[in-house]
Amino acid sequence: MTSSPRVRMTPESRREQLLDLGVTLLATRSLDELSIEILAEEAGISRGLLYHYFGNKHDFHEAVVRRAAEDLVAITAPGGEGDLAARLTSSIDRYLGWVEANHEGYVSLVRAASGGNERLREIYESTRSALTDRIFDAAGAEGLASLGITDSPGVRLVVRGWAALVEEVVLSWVEDDRGVSREALVGSLTASLAALLGVAPS
Amino acid sequence: MTSSPRVRMTPESRREQLLDLGVTLLATRSLDELSIEILAEEAGISRGLLYHYFGNKHDFHEAVVRRAAEDLVAITAPGGEGDLAARLTSSIDRYLGWVEANHEGYVSLVRAASGGNERLREIYESTRSALTDRIFDAAGAEGLASLGITDSPGVRLVVRGWAALVEEVVLSWVEDDRGVSREALVGSLTASLAALLGVAPS
Repeated sequence: MTSSPRVRMTPESRREQLLDLGVTLLATRSLDELSIEILAEEAGISRGLLYHYFGNKHDFHEAVVRRAAEDLVAITAPGGEGDLAARLTSSIDRYLGWVEANHEGYVSLVRAASGGNERLREIYESTRSALTDRIFDAAGAEGLASLGITDSPGVRLVVRGWAALVEEVVLSWVEDDRGVSREALVGSLTASLAALLGVAPS
Repeated sequence: MTSSPRVRMTPESRREQLLDLGVTLLATRSLDELSIEILAEEAGISRGLLYHYFGNKHDFHEAVVRRAAEDLVAITAPGGEGDLAARLTSSIDRYLGWVEANHEGYVSLVRAASGGNERLREIYESTRSALTDRIFDAAGAEGLASLGITDSPGVRLVVRGWAALVEEVVLSWVEDDRGVSREALVGSLTASLAALLGVAPS
């Protein structure tokens, strides 16, 4: 924190701070339960001021979800060290931790995006792309090459399917782990990408 | 067809016939676009009579979606012959054909189910279970055993993830095949189950 209570915050940093609070509130609530009223109460400021910052409820939700998505992308950014499997393991482990910590909000976002809220769908799709496109960036492509894989439409299709698999398995496991350990799960999800790439359509 | 125009149909078989027409209409329409008015027009009978058969619009949608789901489960039932891969290939090929033929309605069902319509969600979930539980029935278990796999929570989790992958990949391919052939796609989806089971969490 660079600000202190004695320094007046700019409107922009105040809005950022309120967005972060919104993300924290969303973690344990569905989108339907996240209202400007609740944010006002938690932040100790008037609803009127919040409407000034965020417009209406839809704009507020969109801004909070966008911030949460940015956090997820940042948190799961693979480190520069290790081979593909090591970087993937670390990234999946952090994704899993994020879903655990933000379960309520995440489930409601997935549902809202699938259910036809076009603005949330756009954020959801672009976030998923940001998460999976890393596999094809410079470091990722090197990792793929080490598996004998080169980028192709069939490989892209498999990666898209793998992302759906990871989402489904992680949400299912967070709801009920059925005795499967976290370590075994992360190991399996990591290995599943290479296993799937080995049978990608040509 | 066992009935002829000269034989008066029972109300029950008339309702069944109307449901089949509803399924046909849903194939090229979203759920939102499938109204009792359209069904009345296509069937050449009054709206009043249809409300008599189906109650309200929600009941009508539920009945049509349930019938479409039953059709999908029946169409993709694996034959009794061949090994696991051969039966799976044939089943996936028929699933793919069904999604191609019913694309509009299927996408709208997936969205409605994900988006929080609880009755459609229940049909969607039970259909997915019916499709994947086959892998663990008598013939399926024999096939799994031939791969050295025994049923476990980790294996169930992987199969659930594989189902999400198949749905995502097939919908994506039907929208744009990106030059990937149908045969290559079906082969890859079949091989992906064994590949994933090979790295299932213990």
